[in-house]
Amino acid sequence: MRVPVPGLREGEVTLPPDTDRYVTRVHRCDVGDAIAGFDPETGLEADGELIATRPARVRFETPRATSRRPAVATTLIQCMAKGNKVDAVVRDATELGVTKIVLAVAARSVKRGGDVERYRRVVLEAARQCGRGDVPELVGVVELAEAWRHGEGRCVMLDGSGLAMAGVLDGAGVVTFAVGPEGGWSDEERAAALEAGFTLGRVGAFTMRTETAAAAALGARWALYSAVEG
Amino acid sequence: MRVPVPGLREGEVTLPPDTDRYVTRVHRCDVGDAIAGFDPETGLEADGELIATRPARVRFETPRATSRRPAVATTLIQCMAKGNKVDAVVRDATELGVTKIVLAVAARSVKRGGDVERYRRVVLEAARQCGRGDVPELVGVVELAEAWRHGEGRCVMLDGSGLAMAGVLDGAGVVTFAVGPEGGWSDEERAAALEAGFTLGRVGAFTMRTETAAAAALGARWALYSAVEG
Repeated sequence: MRVPVPGLREGEVTLPPDTDRYVTRVHRCDVGDAIAGFDPETGLEADGELIATRPARVRFETPRATSRRPAVATTLIQCMAKGNKVDAVVRDATELGVTKIVLAVAARSVKRGGDVERYRRVVLEAARQCGRGDVPELVGVVELAEAWRHGEGRCVMLDGSGLAMAGVLDGAGVVTFAVGPEGGWSDEERAAALEAGFTLGRVGAFTMRTETAAAAALGARWALYSAVEG
Repeated sequence: MRVPVPGLREGEVTLPPDTDRYVTRVHRCDVGDAIAGFDPETGLEADGELIATRPARVRFETPRATSRRPAVATTLIQCMAKGNKVDAVVRDATELGVTKIVLAVAARSVKRGGDVERYRRVVLEAARQCGRGDVPELVGVVELAEAWRHGEGRCVMLDGSGLAMAGVLDGAGVVTFAVGPEGGWSDEERAAALEAGFTLGRVGAFTMRTETAAAAALGARWALYSAVEG
């Protein structure tokens, strides 16, 4: 089995209590069993062997760069939103293989600042939980005018007036999505995005909330990507 | 413009205070402007005209069945989960055009009951907010063994061990998704689902949480559907 090990290094390591419980009680591993460790913070993983229980200790081989990282780059420009919505979005984005998250302030963002260190912790914890071997790069909080510069590959502004995602993404490799704040985009922001090379795209037939748009768009992105790449 | 009007009927109607504010202050509508009303609870909509402000009153024509409903049937079998996760999922599912939600208890569901009247209110409010003219049917809470019977069309059990969604859905029309509880599916549940005609499918490369899986799967569903249907 494969478990997150913060500070993963070669040699003997005592597993953290929750991982110990997971390995020895939930999965009933015993001395001699193979345990791979991964650390999304450093992007390293290592094979290992359980050498003791109570507490669980693992002897790890030399760590190597993880292979459990997204197959292709995806950037998410997410506008700031109230409450813990941004927490939820960066967590979803990590699970759904985003490689760069740019947090931005839009004209209609009610919340304009953000605790970026907190988002970093959320992202790291999400990577550990979902088995992802790396973490997305986190940029921000920046003004939206600066955020457009992070657009790479096929750039899509999520908007109810846009085209269905199949027509917009069309099996694209590198993709950038921009998700607006609760109140949606202003006309000036739509114009600036089009100027920066973005296309308007939507998922489904109805208006999406800012905290759901990224997950739905990323679901569409991987479906259309794997339809082409297999 | 088009606004939700609970209890929509032909004739003169005073708009609720929040809708009044939205129409007359946010959008600065005035007497004589066209205002369409919709009521997802009954699935009706009607054209109308603003005939007074302070308070805003609209004269509606004879209501008709809404055309703003999903183009094709999608069922979501969602296993019960802790906290307000099921609220979030039924809200997402409504926005993303699910036509039937079946709430089910799985072997690893920590939470086993649910306030179905509450979910009905969440679904109705979500439909109003996202401009959807109808509401999904809500079934449950039922045992998972009963839930499989609601599978219609291409049936997909969301599971990390499954195939990428493009291969599983393949432009399917009618689709059913089943999303497990926090702890995932038991081996018996996987076997029962396969027996009931389900295929295992996943979105992206990493493990999804139960509260994100539906949104990502529905994003994939509409992307692949519109790739075929246009």
